[in-house]
Amino acid sequence: MTNDPFLTDPDLASDLDADSASDPDTLRALVRPRSIAVVGASRDPDKIGGRIFRYVRDRGFSGPVYPVSAGTEPVQGDEPIASLEDLPSPADLVFVVVPAKDAPDVVRAADDRGCGACVVVSSGFAESGPDGELLQERIEAIARDTDMRIVGPNCMGVMNPRLGLYGTFMSALDEVELPPGNVALISQSGAFGTHAALLLRNRGLDLSLWCTTGNECDVDVADGIACAARDEDTEVIVAYLEGCRDLEKLEAALSVASETRKPIVVFKTGQSDVGAAAARAHTAADAGDDARFSEMFERSGVYRARTIEELIDVAGACAANAFPNGRRAGLMTISGGVGVVMADAAVRAGLDVAPMPVPVERELKALLPFAAARNPVDCTAQAFNDWSLFDRFLDAVVRRGGYDSIVLFLATVGANPAVMDPLMDRLEAIRAAHHDRVMAVSLIIDDERRRRLERAGFLVFEDPTRAVNTVAALAHIGDHLFRRRPGGPRGAGE
Amino acid sequence: MTNDPFLTDPDLASDLDADSASDPDTLRALVRPRSIAVVGASRDPDKIGGRIFRYVRDRGFSGPVYPVSAGTEPVQGDEPIASLEDLPSPADLVFVVVPAKDAPDVVRAADDRGCGACVVVSSGFAESGPDGELLQERIEAIARDTDMRIVGPNCMGVMNPRLGLYGTFMSALDEVELPPGNVALISQSGAFGTHAALLLRNRGLDLSLWCTTGNECDVDVADGIACAARDEDTEVIVAYLEGCRDLEKLEAALSVASETRKPIVVFKTGQSDVGAAAARAHTAADAGDDARFSEMFERSGVYRARTIEELIDVAGACAANAFPNGRRAGLMTISGGVGVVMADAAVRAGLDVAPMPVPVERELKALLPFAAARNPVDCTAQAFNDWSLFDRFLDAVVRRGGYDSIVLFLATVGANPAVMDPLMDRLEAIRAAHHDRVMAVSLIIDDERRRRLERAGFLVFEDPTRAVNTVAALAHIGDHLFRRRPGGPRGAGE
Repeated sequence: MTNDPFLTDPDLASDLDADSASDPDTLRALVRPRSIAVVGASRDPDKIGGRIFRYVRDRGFSGPVYPVSAGTEPVQGDEPIASLEDLPSPADLVFVVVPAKDAPDVVRAADDRGCGACVVVSSGFAESGPDGELLQERIEAIARDTDMRIVGPNCMGVMNPRLGLYGTFMSALDEVELPPGNVALISQSGAFGTHAALLLRNRGLDLSLWCTTGNECDVDVADGIACAARDEDTEVIVAYLEGCRDLEKLEAALSVASETRKPIVVFKTGQSDVGAAAARAHTAADAGDDARFSEMFERSGVYRARTIEELIDVAGACAANAFPNGRRAGLMTISGGVGVVMADAAVRAGLDVAPMPVPVERELKALLPFAAARNPVDCTAQAFNDWSLFDRFLDAVVRRGGYDSIVLFLATVGANPAVMDPLMDRLEAIRAAHHDRVMAVSLIIDDERRRRLERAGFLVFEDPTRAVNTVAALAHIGDHLFRRRPGGPRGAGE
Repeated sequence: MTNDPFLTDPDLASDLDADSASDPDTLRALVRPRSIAVVGASRDPDKIGGRIFRYVRDRGFSGPVYPVSAGTEPVQGDEPIASLEDLPSPADLVFVVVPAKDAPDVVRAADDRGCGACVVVSSGFAESGPDGELLQERIEAIARDTDMRIVGPNCMGVMNPRLGLYGTFMSALDEVELPPGNVALISQSGAFGTHAALLLRNRGLDLSLWCTTGNECDVDVADGIACAARDEDTEVIVAYLEGCRDLEKLEAALSVASETRKPIVVFKTGQSDVGAAAARAHTAADAGDDARFSEMFERSGVYRARTIEELIDVAGACAANAFPNGRRAGLMTISGGVGVVMADAAVRAGLDVAPMPVPVERELKALLPFAAARNPVDCTAQAFNDWSLFDRFLDAVVRRGGYDSIVLFLATVGANPAVMDPLMDRLEAIRAAHHDRVMAVSLIIDDERRRRLERAGFLVFEDPTRAVNTVAALAHIGDHLFRRRPGGPRGAGE
C-alpha cells in the first residue's frame, strides 16, 4: 500500500460510509481526525476529562482541540465552549467524558452538529445494570440511525501517535512517551489496552494505532482489526477481546488482515465460567462458545496467546518480521538439561524436532563423543574449554541441519562478557550468513547486549520455553500468511 | 532444628554411614568438607580443572585445598601434589577433573586414601555410548563397595556458599557473587543448575546448598533433597530431574522434606518422546512414566513447575515464607479485562474464586454502580479520579471477603510515581494489618519500588497470570505442609 486512503479525502467528516462496518474508511474520522472536541474537558488536569483534553491538546496533534465545558473559567488555559452547537465547525472526533445519564444527549448533539465520530469514555452503561442498559440502548439507537461512528461507551479512547493523537486518560502518559511505531493494539478493555501498550513500549515496540472499544455500541474489535489491516503504518495487529456479537464480521476482519499479510496475535478471555461472568460485568460481553473462537483463530492463522506475556512475546517476534518457512526446529544447547526442556516444549507447541542428518550427527559425535548431536544438539559445557567446538556444532545445525528455525540456549554465558563478547561476533556472522532462518537465543543477558543480539536479527528470551513457544507461534502465523498462499514475499528465505 | 548435625562430628571423613542413602549424614563430606583436593587442577585458570581449583581455593573456603596435578610447575601459584596418595591427610572432598578413561582409577585412589567423597565432573560416561558405559560401571562398582560417596560423573559440582565452597566450573562465577541464602538447588543437570542459580540470584534469592548430580552413579537427586530437607540453613528446596532410578527413595526424600516442612518446587523433564530421548543422551536418565512422577509430586505436596520461569517464581514465593490457609482467592483489579484474565487463570489453577459476601457486594455497587463487586472486584479506572474508592474496595476485599489470598492488579500504576507513591503507603498499611493473607500484586513497576513492595510482604509480578499461578502453587504446597498435618505453625495466619 503506497497511498494512504485516510489522507486523500478533503472533506472527511461528511463523507463517511456507514454501510460496511469493517471498511476502515468509515473509521477515518476516528483514527485520522483533523479537529477534536472534548465534552467534559475538566479544569483539573488530573481528572479523566482533564487528562484527555490535556493529552490531546499538548502532545503534538496539529488540528484544533476544543474544550466543551460549562462555565466561563478557562479550562487549563483555554476558553471553554458551552456546547457542541457552539463549535466553529463540526469536529471530526468528539470525546465524551460526562456522566452516563448525559452521554446519549451529547452523542445526539455531536451527530446533529455533523461530527465524524464520538468516543464515549463514560462508564455506567450495560456493564452496570438495568438503568445503564437503557442508557446504552439510547446510544445504540443513535448509532443505527447515523453515519457518525461511535466508540464505547466504557472505553479508554484511541491513539494515533503518528498524528500526535493521544486520546485517552491513561495516567502513565505523564511518565512515558509513546512514540509512533508499527503495532496496532485493538482492545475491548481499556485498562488492558493501557497495560499492553506499556508492556510493548518496555519491549521497544511502538504503536501505529491504539483503539479501545469497551461496550461496543457501534465500533467493535473487528472494526479495529479491519482498520489496522489496511493501515499502511501497521505491520502487526494485537487484539484483546472478551466477547464478540458478530463472529462473521470478526472473521471477515481477520480475512482482511490475512489478505494484507498482517500477522495477528489475539488474547481472548472468558474461558472459565467465572471469567465469562466477569466479562459480562466488565464490558457486558458474552464470552460465547470458546471453542468457536479457537477454531476461527486457527482457520484464520491468528495466534491465540495463552497469557499476556505470551501476547507481547509473539507480537515482538512478529514485529521483527521474519517467519520460519516451516515447522522444523533445530534446538542447540550448551546444557543438556535445557535441551530436554526445549524438546518437551517444542513437541508440545507443534514444532518438528527432526533429527540431524545422520552423517552430520556422526561427525559431531566424532568431534565430541559425549555430546548429543541428534536434536537437541548439546555441545555440553565442554564449550567453555574450547569455543571452537561450539562454533562447529552451531555451524552444523544452521548450515546442514535443514531447519527452518533454530533455538539456541546459552544459559549464563551472557552474564560473562569475557565469554559473551567474542561469541557475539560469531553469532552476528552466523546470523548474517543465514537470513533465511528464524533464530532465537535464550540466555541470561544484560539489556545492552540483548539489544545488540536483537539488532543482529535474533529473537532474545531469558526463558527457553518462551523462546520455543514464540518460534512455534511464528511458524503457525507464517504458515497461514505466507505459505498456504501464492506469492508470499515476507516469509524468511523467500 | 537448632543443632547442625554436620558440624558435630570431629572425625568426619572416616565416620560415614553408607547404609541409608537418604541419610544426609552420609553427605557431610560432600556438603561440609574440611579439606579439598582437585585432581586435574589446571594451570590455566580458565580451563574446567583450573576454574574449579580457583573457585574452591579463592572464594573463602577455610580448609586446605590441594591441586593434584602431574608436573612440577606451580598450579596457579601453588605447588602441585603428584597424586592423592601424596596428600598430607585424606581430603574430605575430592574433585575429579580428568579424562573419562582415567576417572575410575582416581576414584579408586580417593577411596584407598580414605577420602570422604568424590565429585566426578568429567564427561564421557553412560551418556556417550558403550565405551563410556563400561567406564561408568567401574565407578558404580566402586560406589557399591565403599562408604565414600560419589557425585557424578558428568556433573558440574557442588556449592555451599556459607562455607565459601564453590566447587564448580560455572564461568558466571567470574562475574557474579553467589552469597549464602536459604534455597537449596538440587539439579541432575549441571548447566541447568548453573542457569537456575543465576536466575534465583537475579531475583534476590540465594543458595544454602547447590548440588548437581549428573549421571548419578551414587548420589542422586533424592539424596540431595533429603540432605537439604535436614539442613538448617535451607528453607526452600528447588529440584530438577530428568529421570529417577529409585522412585521409592525419591518419595522417601520428599517425605523427609514434608516432615521438616520444607516446600519443594520441582522441574521434571522428558515428557515428550523427543525429550525423553534427549534426557537419555544427556545424563543417561530414563524419563520413566511421567504420570507416576506427577502422582508422586501431588501426593507429596511438591509443586511441579511447567516452565523454568515458573520454577523460579514459585521458589521465590516460597522463600517469602507465607502460605495461604486455603484456596479462596480474592481478585481485585483496576482493569476489568485483566480481572477476566485472572479469573480464567485462577479457575484453571484450582483456586476458588468465591464471590464476595452479598451485603459487601451491594455496598460496593452502591459506591460505584458500574464497578464489579463480586469477584473479581473491579473498581475500574474511576480509581484515577478518586483513589479513596480504590481504598474502600480493597479494604472490603481484604477485610470482609474471607479470602486466603488476594491478587491485586494495578496495571501501569507503578510507572506513575505521582499515583504510586501515595498508594504504596496505603498498600503497606493494609499488608501490615493483615498478616494472615498472602497478597500478590501485578503491575508494571521499577525495581526500586518493586523491592519496597516485596519488603512490605507482597509478592510482585508483572504478569497477572504468573501472579495467580504462583498463589495457586503456594496454596497447593501449604495445603500439604501445614494444613493436612497437625500443629503446623508456618501457614499464614496460624
